[in-house]
Amino acid sequence: MINETRPTFQIFQEVHIVLWLTGLSSAGKSTISERLVRELRAIGYRAEPMDGDVIRQELCRDLGFSKEDRDENVRRIAFVAKLLAKHSIIVVVSVISPYRQTREEVRSRIPGFVEVYVNAPIEICERRDVKGLYRRARAGELQGFTGVDDPYEPPLSPEIECRTALETPEESVRRILDFVTLRLPPPGVAHPIAEATLLTDR
Amino acid sequence: MINETRPTFQIFQEVHIVLWLTGLSSAGKSTISERLVRELRAIGYRAEPMDGDVIRQELCRDLGFSKEDRDENVRRIAFVAKLLAKHSIIVVVSVISPYRQTREEVRSRIPGFVEVYVNAPIEICERRDVKGLYRRARAGELQGFTGVDDPYEPPLSPEIECRTALETPEESVRRILDFVTLRLPPPGVAHPIAEATLLTDR
Repeated sequence: MINETRPTFQIFQEVHIVLWLTGLSSAGKSTISERLVRELRAIGYRAEPMDGDVIRQELCRDLGFSKEDRDENVRRIAFVAKLLAKHSIIVVVSVISPYRQTREEVRSRIPGFVEVYVNAPIEICERRDVKGLYRRARAGELQGFTGVDDPYEPPLSPEIECRTALETPEESVRRILDFVTLRLPPPGVAHPIAEATLLTDR
Repeated sequence: MINETRPTFQIFQEVHIVLWLTGLSSAGKSTISERLVRELRAIGYRAEPMDGDVIRQELCRDLGFSKEDRDENVRRIAFVAKLLAKHSIIVVVSVISPYRQTREEVRSRIPGFVEVYVNAPIEICERRDVKGLYRRARAGELQGFTGVDDPYEPPLSPEIECRTALETPEESVRRILDFVTLRLPPPGVAHPIAEATLLTDR
């Protein structure tokens, strides 16, 4: 007998993947991350976003924007991302992470690391200026702002590049999803126990 | 047909539980945590240990042992524990977490928080002195050591108390497992797809 009131089991897939979205402020990382996580969940994967701004608030309130502090920020994010990925949660990190070598260190430590370069010309990013930070940086109110008076080292061979000045967020998300789904077995069937039980009656 | 070469699916349970082991240094937190995680995995749950020492190294290298720093340490652990628990991973935290109010704040933020008081008299902990820290604290080489020159506020009504001077680690683990398994639906059947598929042939 099927007990419809206890949909407590799920079947899902063993996967190990961390999508690491790097790029300038206002390049489109968070927009892509939000939609991507929604899509991944919709097709049956477990997914969790890790937004640089949230992590700064929750795990890194002690850190500023020097190279050392940015690296430590990235290191902590990588630690948590790896912990989640170990349990088959697809992690979507969005953090500027401007230093190439630091990203390569993360790659070497995380199995299933996928570098996604969210690429838009700084002029476009500055025109978008989602959080008003470029304006403040140009006005001298913020020091050490990536792209203004702090470096950004673009990935040399990212697994995926999203040119957000030339494509819509939907197109970027589609490109990433195609990459993921081609490389992973199909997602687990995230059905409640009632439906899982039905399978045994075939 | 059963494809034995792709044991990629797992069936498992939606659970939300964070077992928070608090107690003095050398009270037995890590010993219980290790065995508990092993047992939980053996019976089919996803489980992840979060050891205070590891987290200090990975996420909290900036923090010392003042009340403020201890609280921030606990806050970061709670953030990550909640993130894991959200994805049905049973988290077993072992961290001294000496302040009652801080633990209560964590309780209020984490659904499924279970306080486990790992209780042994300080004389026993000091005799065990697993890491040689009591000796160093008594010698004045360490300041702000819980139980020596820093407070420990015992839980007033923990869900579980393990009196490790009076019971074996096996008994402590059994008590916690009984608590968990009584309150949760039975664990998911963590079988690979080959075995899951077999069920459909019954």
